[in-house]
Amino acid sequence: MGDEDSLKDHFHVENIDKNLDMQTGLLHELFSVTTPDNRNFNLVVESFASLSKPNVYGVRYSIIPTNFSDEIEVIKVHDYINQKVHHQEDDIRVADDLGQMQLDFIPDNGQPSYLVTTFRSQQGIILTYKANENFAPNPKIEYFKDANNHYGYRSKYFAKPGSSKDFEFLFAIGDIHPLVNANMYSDQYLSSLDNYILDTTFKSELMASAQVWQTFWLHSDVSIDGDPALQLCVRFNLFELNQSAGRDEQTGIPAKGLTGNGYGGHFFWDTEIFMLPFFTYTQPKIAKDLLMFRYHTLQIAKEQASDFGLGKGAMYPWRTINGYESSAYWLAGQAQFHINADIAFAIEQYYEITSDESFIRNYGFEIILETARFWMEYGNYAELGGKRQFVLNRVTGPDEYSALVDNNYYTNVLAQSNLRLAVKYARKFKGDDGMLSRLNVTAPEIKEMEAAANAMYLPYDKKRNVKLQFQNFEQLPKMDIASIDQSMFPLLLHYHPLMLYRHQVNKQADTVMVDFMFPQGNTLDQLKADYEFYEPITTHDSSLSKAIYAIIAARIGKDQQAYDFFSQAVQTDLMDVHHNTKNGIHAGSLGAAWEGIMYGFAGIVNNATSFSLKPHLPTTWNCLKFKVHLYGSEFKFTIYQDSVEVELLSGKGADISVYDDKKHLTPKNAKETWTYSNQF
Amino acid sequence: MGDEDSLKDHFHVENIDKNLDMQTGLLHELFSVTTPDNRNFNLVVESFASLSKPNVYGVRYSIIPTNFSDEIEVIKVHDYINQKVHHQEDDIRVADDLGQMQLDFIPDNGQPSYLVTTFRSQQGIILTYKANENFAPNPKIEYFKDANNHYGYRSKYFAKPGSSKDFEFLFAIGDIHPLVNANMYSDQYLSSLDNYILDTTFKSELMASAQVWQTFWLHSDVSIDGDPALQLCVRFNLFELNQSAGRDEQTGIPAKGLTGNGYGGHFFWDTEIFMLPFFTYTQPKIAKDLLMFRYHTLQIAKEQASDFGLGKGAMYPWRTINGYESSAYWLAGQAQFHINADIAFAIEQYYEITSDESFIRNYGFEIILETARFWMEYGNYAELGGKRQFVLNRVTGPDEYSALVDNNYYTNVLAQSNLRLAVKYARKFKGDDGMLSRLNVTAPEIKEMEAAANAMYLPYDKKRNVKLQFQNFEQLPKMDIASIDQSMFPLLLHYHPLMLYRHQVNKQADTVMVDFMFPQGNTLDQLKADYEFYEPITTHDSSLSKAIYAIIAARIGKDQQAYDFFSQAVQTDLMDVHHNTKNGIHAGSLGAAWEGIMYGFAGIVNNATSFSLKPHLPTTWNCLKFKVHLYGSEFKFTIYQDSVEVELLSGKGADISVYDDKKHLTPKNAKETWTYSNQF
Repeated sequence: MGDEDSLKDHFHVENIDKNLDMQTGLLHELFSVTTPDNRNFNLVVESFASLSKPNVYGVRYSIIPTNFSDEIEVIKVHDYINQKVHHQEDDIRVADDLGQMQLDFIPDNGQPSYLVTTFRSQQGIILTYKANENFAPNPKIEYFKDANNHYGYRSKYFAKPGSSKDFEFLFAIGDIHPLVNANMYSDQYLSSLDNYILDTTFKSELMASAQVWQTFWLHSDVSIDGDPALQLCVRFNLFELNQSAGRDEQTGIPAKGLTGNGYGGHFFWDTEIFMLPFFTYTQPKIAKDLLMFRYHTLQIAKEQASDFGLGKGAMYPWRTINGYESSAYWLAGQAQFHINADIAFAIEQYYEITSDESFIRNYGFEIILETARFWMEYGNYAELGGKRQFVLNRVTGPDEYSALVDNNYYTNVLAQSNLRLAVKYARKFKGDDGMLSRLNVTAPEIKEMEAAANAMYLPYDKKRNVKLQFQNFEQLPKMDIASIDQSMFPLLLHYHPLMLYRHQVNKQADTVMVDFMFPQGNTLDQLKADYEFYEPITTHDSSLSKAIYAIIAARIGKDQQAYDFFSQAVQTDLMDVHHNTKNGIHAGSLGAAWEGIMYGFAGIVNNATSFSLKPHLPTTWNCLKFKVHLYGSEFKFTIYQDSVEVELLSGKGADISVYDDKKHLTPKNAKETWTYSNQF
Repeated sequence: MGDEDSLKDHFHVENIDKNLDMQTGLLHELFSVTTPDNRNFNLVVESFASLSKPNVYGVRYSIIPTNFSDEIEVIKVHDYINQKVHHQEDDIRVADDLGQMQLDFIPDNGQPSYLVTTFRSQQGIILTYKANENFAPNPKIEYFKDANNHYGYRSKYFAKPGSSKDFEFLFAIGDIHPLVNANMYSDQYLSSLDNYILDTTFKSELMASAQVWQTFWLHSDVSIDGDPALQLCVRFNLFELNQSAGRDEQTGIPAKGLTGNGYGGHFFWDTEIFMLPFFTYTQPKIAKDLLMFRYHTLQIAKEQASDFGLGKGAMYPWRTINGYESSAYWLAGQAQFHINADIAFAIEQYYEITSDESFIRNYGFEIILETARFWMEYGNYAELGGKRQFVLNRVTGPDEYSALVDNNYYTNVLAQSNLRLAVKYARKFKGDDGMLSRLNVTAPEIKEMEAAANAMYLPYDKKRNVKLQFQNFEQLPKMDIASIDQSMFPLLLHYHPLMLYRHQVNKQADTVMVDFMFPQGNTLDQLKADYEFYEPITTHDSSLSKAIYAIIAARIGKDQQAYDFFSQAVQTDLMDVHHNTKNGIHAGSLGAAWEGIMYGFAGIVNNATSFSLKPHLPTTWNCLKFKVHLYGSEFKFTIYQDSVEVELLSGKGADISVYDDKKHLTPKNAKETWTYSNQF
């Protein structure tokens, strides 16, 4: 047998097993590797991203020969090249050229250390890694620098069938933001990174991280008794959600989590509207960190409004990684101005659930105010139907099968809410002259916001009694979705945008989002009319759609549809429903699935003073259990088909209503039970 | 003094004079060239694109030393390289990467011959050139091939101050289309190209071409007595127009003529709506050639409709060079569906003026029919204002400061006209069963077209009595153009499209185009109301705008505005009004200026049976003279401030009306005179 080299010779690799331990966060992968000369070995790769030290990533390689004995050399090195990350794919949703990144070695750090920098925006991160050199009885690992100034680790040993040798590495990865410019890193920063992985081991970091996972499951698990398949999916979703969320006030949650480069790692409204509620209710500290990312980028949003030509206000980016707008196709990007109101909505929701006065006073109100100002600048009054109404022309709503429409119902309702929140908090902080004058708030401005909110035009079809997705929507022909061959979905890959835009066809919940987010004041008939109008023209080509339809279906008594939509939504990634999980998970959909359970089956309604439920459990579910934080207290909910048990776990308690039957829980009266029957 | 080489050393070049002889088509340029050692010579470059042999281009270099005597070597060679035509400019309207073109030598043709091919679409042309080798008393020119297989010509001679030596070359340039694929050229094709320039000289080709120019000016000149500055501009415009027009049924007129690579050499609606009338009235053969380009690409237009998802009809490209849609920014490109009706309109106009029965029967009707079918497929009925109306949603009209609107007035009127033309000609050819069945025309289809045309929704503001640019237009805020700093124009270079789209602001005549193209049935009050509503919100950032406003201003008695708009329009290129003539002339504007004279100051109205004028000459003009072809006859018009003389030059004559006073001209009664006074 001659020498074989995995860099020069083709080693055949087969993935035998893949296993994610959601209790510890350890991913275990088993590969069978065969050389051209038919030498075979098993390669086990175990890896975890630490939750106890978010900068740390660990990986362990184990090599187990099955049919040979020979000397093996294991080398771990990263090539010192200018990497052109290029990805060609038919799917237009996948970034097909992610641009160039430059890798530079940082010399003489005692272990391999790199600076990775994007060429255009010059954003850099530092990463450094070290091998566990003292892991007896495994072979010695040697740090080296080769002739080309490449740093790495290598080990040479005599391998025997069945004997496993392990090679463990810990990576410390710098935050992206402190290095906005790659040349700005300092030795001090680098050594603070080193500290994360010095004097520790793969095993102890894994254990520390696993402990954080235990705490997570203790407080954030959702347990479904009677539906093991969906239970597994739900837990997978919560796992990915928890792993993806930024915790440093400098990041959001990428649309693909940490699992793929689709959407370029960017943050969208998905964070605030689909993922944040999970954190707001179960880990309010993370929810705040995520909202603080918006606060720290408020100045950029104000610059963007000014660059756009507006006199004041903030214009948050539809997609971003650093606060700047990164939409390439602005029609279905930047034009989705509702992002501004979405952020305001999420702030209100966070405040309602957490009663975090310091946040709303110091940060939240300012965002609400500046986004409300955006609407005042963008919108205008017009004579419509004989009335002076406030209109928002030429916007794109959530649905991406329409664009540049006038008075999108969702956008207008959200903007109205945004304006009203600004009015509400300006009045709440009326006495605080320092704050109001710092923010240039005047009484006339607040009056104008109130008037605009009250005059907001909400297009409505009186004949069909439905909320109209946008003005003129009723004059578009319906697309006959049922007659389209399955191979043509998602439609965006097969139709010119103009073909979609000119039809009544929805990629995702749009007007129905309003019914989900603002259930108050809707009659059951209204919810039904909206659902029955929009559901047949919705393709659910977006992964953000089905969970929302499940929620409304549950609320209007369409039990089977609710369950079907929910189960499809919750399976999106684990079952690869959209056939594109290879490009990364659908983080928004993961959060939406949690919302499906809470807002749909548990039937919760956000409220600042009392927590209200109207459960409609799927008939196959025996019991649904979860914990939530409310107004500073933690509660455990156990929902059966005909009863609800609530237990106050910590804090001073609160009012809880089940089907409008309100009870007050306190440390002294820490447990209550309700019986109920499904009502609509 | 040492050797100096223009390839290695920096020769300072100053342009002393530039002179276009519009009588002969010869461009004369004089440069003063100074070497680093201060040797100076004059370089005269004379060139022409032949009108007698459209494939031929001639260039003559004359070298006249002013301050030295020495041996000179003149080398003419084209580098054998893969050219990356790359152009960086802040102006987004300039193609900033024109893509790659490949130059290949065709060896051993006795003279340098190339194949130039675009990389992506693989469209090729061949060009070959030869030196006039026997031009005594000038030095001998030698054909050579160098070590790198570059072919060229060279000449070495002793130069003396004041003595001029000439070097003449004739190029033969193949048509683009026969070579759609660059590998398809044949030796035969190449030798047919050679024939254009064999056994002839620069001088005799220039003379032959100049003779064609004489004929052109004899029939197509527009003479303005009393306004020498504008007279010069008008003639320059006509010269460029005539030079730019395709004459082979395979090409249109590029938006930049033959003078620049802005807009990538593409054809737009500019051809049919702004340039064609000049040819229809003065050189109907060229007008027909241009329309035949649309006929020959009808199959492609039908494919494009089908690819778009429509059941039938033709969808002509907004911009194209080979019949395929080449819009990059489809929002202000492909979405300008009015191109289909524009072509139908131009066909009708051509037929009205020429009475070319064979064209309308064999080609024109088919285009009108297939474009009418497009509207039936794209449009739909909707309940609007209590009436069942035919609507065209999600289109972009002519104005590029709005996009994706519903029921653009211009588009809907043009579509209505297109449908009615289809109906009219289907009825005209009723007896011709062969033709109708070949085109699958049925009586019900024609009835549906008629009904749709009659039900076409035309948005109208009853309060202001103006035609509305599009549905919902009245609810957009006006942009305060007057308050914007001059440095911010054109707005498209300084504002996000969304900032423009959400305002009442026009780049160019849009609704006012309708008043220009369909003057019939408009009251003077209507024309005035439209003009006064749209003019203040129009930036004229498009060069297609002012001439149209001049026409309407002339019609409604705003004499000074008419003259000002016209004179700015007609000076667009010669005076470089938009500061971008370096990227090429504005061919559409050249044609629009001709329209300004004819439809504005002469006040003509297209009509199939009698030619009607309502002159409103600018007060400074003593006399306006032009010739036109009408219904197969040629007429000479001489318009004074208070009288009109018309003379029949050839053909059997026609009815001519001046301010509705109709007279019949025949070979026997070949001259008539009218007196008139300006009326509105």
